[in-house]
Amino acid sequence: MPNRTPTYQTYLDAHQPRFQDELLDFLRIPSISALPAHKGDVQRAGEWVVARLQAAGAENVQLLPTAGHPVVYGDWLHAEGQPTILIYGHFDVQPADPLHLWTSPPFEPRIDGDKIFARGASDDKGNMLVPILAVEALLKGEGSLPVNLKFCFEGQEEIGSPQIPGFLAKHKKLFACDLAVSADGGQWSDSEGILLIALRGICGLQIDVKGAKTDLHSGGYGGTIRNPAHVLAELLASMHDADGRIAVDGFYDDVADLTDDERAAIARVPFDEEEYLDNLGLEATYGEAGYTTRERVWARPTLEVNGMWSGFQGEGIKTVLPNEAHAKITCRLVSNQRPEKIVELVKAHVAKHTPPGVTATVTPEETGGKPYVTTADHWGNVVVADVLRELYGSEPYHVRSGGSIPITGVFLDELGAYTVSFGFGLRDEGAHAPDEFFRLSSFVKGQAAYCQLLKRFAEGKK
Amino acid sequence: MPNRTPTYQTYLDAHQPRFQDELLDFLRIPSISALPAHKGDVQRAGEWVVARLQAAGAENVQLLPTAGHPVVYGDWLHAEGQPTILIYGHFDVQPADPLHLWTSPPFEPRIDGDKIFARGASDDKGNMLVPILAVEALLKGEGSLPVNLKFCFEGQEEIGSPQIPGFLAKHKKLFACDLAVSADGGQWSDSEGILLIALRGICGLQIDVKGAKTDLHSGGYGGTIRNPAHVLAELLASMHDADGRIAVDGFYDDVADLTDDERAAIARVPFDEEEYLDNLGLEATYGEAGYTTRERVWARPTLEVNGMWSGFQGEGIKTVLPNEAHAKITCRLVSNQRPEKIVELVKAHVAKHTPPGVTATVTPEETGGKPYVTTADHWGNVVVADVLRELYGSEPYHVRSGGSIPITGVFLDELGAYTVSFGFGLRDEGAHAPDEFFRLSSFVKGQAAYCQLLKRFAEGKK
Repeated sequence: MPNRTPTYQTYLDAHQPRFQDELLDFLRIPSISALPAHKGDVQRAGEWVVARLQAAGAENVQLLPTAGHPVVYGDWLHAEGQPTILIYGHFDVQPADPLHLWTSPPFEPRIDGDKIFARGASDDKGNMLVPILAVEALLKGEGSLPVNLKFCFEGQEEIGSPQIPGFLAKHKKLFACDLAVSADGGQWSDSEGILLIALRGICGLQIDVKGAKTDLHSGGYGGTIRNPAHVLAELLASMHDADGRIAVDGFYDDVADLTDDERAAIARVPFDEEEYLDNLGLEATYGEAGYTTRERVWARPTLEVNGMWSGFQGEGIKTVLPNEAHAKITCRLVSNQRPEKIVELVKAHVAKHTPPGVTATVTPEETGGKPYVTTADHWGNVVVADVLRELYGSEPYHVRSGGSIPITGVFLDELGAYTVSFGFGLRDEGAHAPDEFFRLSSFVKGQAAYCQLLKRFAEGKK
Repeated sequence: MPNRTPTYQTYLDAHQPRFQDELLDFLRIPSISALPAHKGDVQRAGEWVVARLQAAGAENVQLLPTAGHPVVYGDWLHAEGQPTILIYGHFDVQPADPLHLWTSPPFEPRIDGDKIFARGASDDKGNMLVPILAVEALLKGEGSLPVNLKFCFEGQEEIGSPQIPGFLAKHKKLFACDLAVSADGGQWSDSEGILLIALRGICGLQIDVKGAKTDLHSGGYGGTIRNPAHVLAELLASMHDADGRIAVDGFYDDVADLTDDERAAIARVPFDEEEYLDNLGLEATYGEAGYTTRERVWARPTLEVNGMWSGFQGEGIKTVLPNEAHAKITCRLVSNQRPEKIVELVKAHVAKHTPPGVTATVTPEETGGKPYVTTADHWGNVVVADVLRELYGSEPYHVRSGGSIPITGVFLDELGAYTVSFGFGLRDEGAHAPDEFFRLSSFVKGQAAYCQLLKRFAEGKK
């Protein structure tokens, strides 16, 4: 009987009303990590997750303290000879303001058709509850899991996970695994899946140009000394050439050319440039010559000014010759670029282009991260692709992200494990925005998909 | 008896102790025009000047209201066939803070040797009292003035004289004159005089570069659209060439070349470049190729950024692609440059250099002023030079100012009169700074010099 309903599916079907009620309970906790007033709520959400993992049959479940919000650990490690999978998600949420833009209160979840509205519904409470329910269905329905499993649910993702790298460095053994699966993510659409292939890295720096001891009167001194604002403008202008390429010596040295296959994979992903421009209110895109918009944001490095300032910013005229000018820059990095080296190259560029009569210093920002690069044929992705192909009936898109997801780098650096993305959020669900929602259909679909995924890991591990 | 003491001098000598007491009284009034709490004090200082002019023998003395602080008028118009001279000064003062840097309270004048310390001692109460005392000495001592005289003392110079242009436009007839003499000024040293030959004009504008509808995530969009901060930097960098010349088309069209005589006159004025750099804490000057530092600041136009800002200015990283960038610019203008035309040229430059994908607008600032240019052989300056030559035994320096003194333009525009500078402040007297002082020797010397000046105007008018 090849089409017999799997036991886990029977279990899932039978308990769906309860699961939905539990999600509503979870969403009622205003676990806003950014707001000190909600510190207790984040803790309470962590305790809720502990209880829920225990109820699902996970073992060694514990709420582990960090210097900030806590981390929930749990495991089930009885699948001898099978890989160990670490499932990641987060139980903290974004602030809910502006409150007046919400149709119903953000922490009083409301179901309307297929949608469940609440802060955190999609990012990430709905998504992170999914694998817990899948594990319960397998353990309660089938008595065991096909692989060894660990859970890592954190409470500080929305504030940049400041304590997580140090925490994982201290708990390497507890969280040791062969692969991480992030339940903090989404699919291309409700009928098309994705493999997450690469994330850009990042480094940041500040340039400070200084001139005279003090601000000066522009009448008394204008025209006789270097104006730091002009020097900064010239430095910034010198960092790109007319083709939109970064004109910092050595900047591209560690950037591998995109292969034809990679370019084809990127080109396969739907992209409507007109819609892109419409959404931004712009008339034209712009970037490095020889690359498409998608390639530019997904697979090419950048050097972007995030802020700059000098002198007078008020109303009217102030006839000041400013004695300082400042810029903040971040570079997005790809393939083998390393944050520290890129900062050094920019530093050298600034030194080379600073004229006499001012000084310019470059200070690296502490935050930084390597690019995260995996491939579609990494065994984790092969399994994910199999499951998604079966789920949607089509080949998942190989997507990249122009942004950075620091946890992928932390898992790689601290645990030596790559991360695959396996979540069911969709782009219209307003993560970080008012009226955030999650689809009940995704909630249900995801549970079965996670059961499938764990089974395939048991079969697919090389 | 060619060396007989002039009658005015006898009068001055006899009344010097009283004059000094009167100056102390005047300095006790905290007539700070910038501070609303001192509005009554500015009014009171105006009333003090009215009474003092009346006591000196001036006629038709009146305190004329403006929309802000008042103006004092007075005249003596009985020198038939002689020119009418308008004497200008101001009875308002700068704020006194930081108070803790004053050796004694700023409005409790203190005499120490030759110095009288108080806010406004040099700028401009001491200096503006001088011609009143000279007029008293001539009227009381000799019974008449050699020329027709009008006084224009204002109470808003230290806040930029906002109401004065409109006020003089409305009272053209009352203030009509052949020449203005500003008692708000100084000499090169206590033994060297100056002729003020030219002041730079000014125009201001703001550039606003706008991109997408909102700030964007630098990961999600970086590298695919024009960054307004980069565009602004490129626009600003495009405004000068490698020789420090302003690269805006037409910018120099109305700038007359300096003549050999003008360059020689500028070169005659002492200037120590090393001391200049030391004071600024700089290693090198910089400016338009082919000109000396003095020529650059006194006789060449500039385009200087006074302020710029875009995006994030806080601590750390914010991965934002700013959607706006702004700069404030003022240009200092010389010879026949006109503020409105220069703004149009910069506007055209910005339009020409703005790439697709952003918009850039240029908004002129309301404040602006033409350059003020006179010559050493203008009859007013010829007379001033004669008096100074006699006073100091040397040829006065022909100086210019890199800054702008708006009142000179207002007198020229509204009254058709040029202004000569005839004041006795010295550069070390801390105008606008703590422990401001005026020299009693300058106070005394100035009174006699003004008597001489008025007599020479009667002889020297062409």
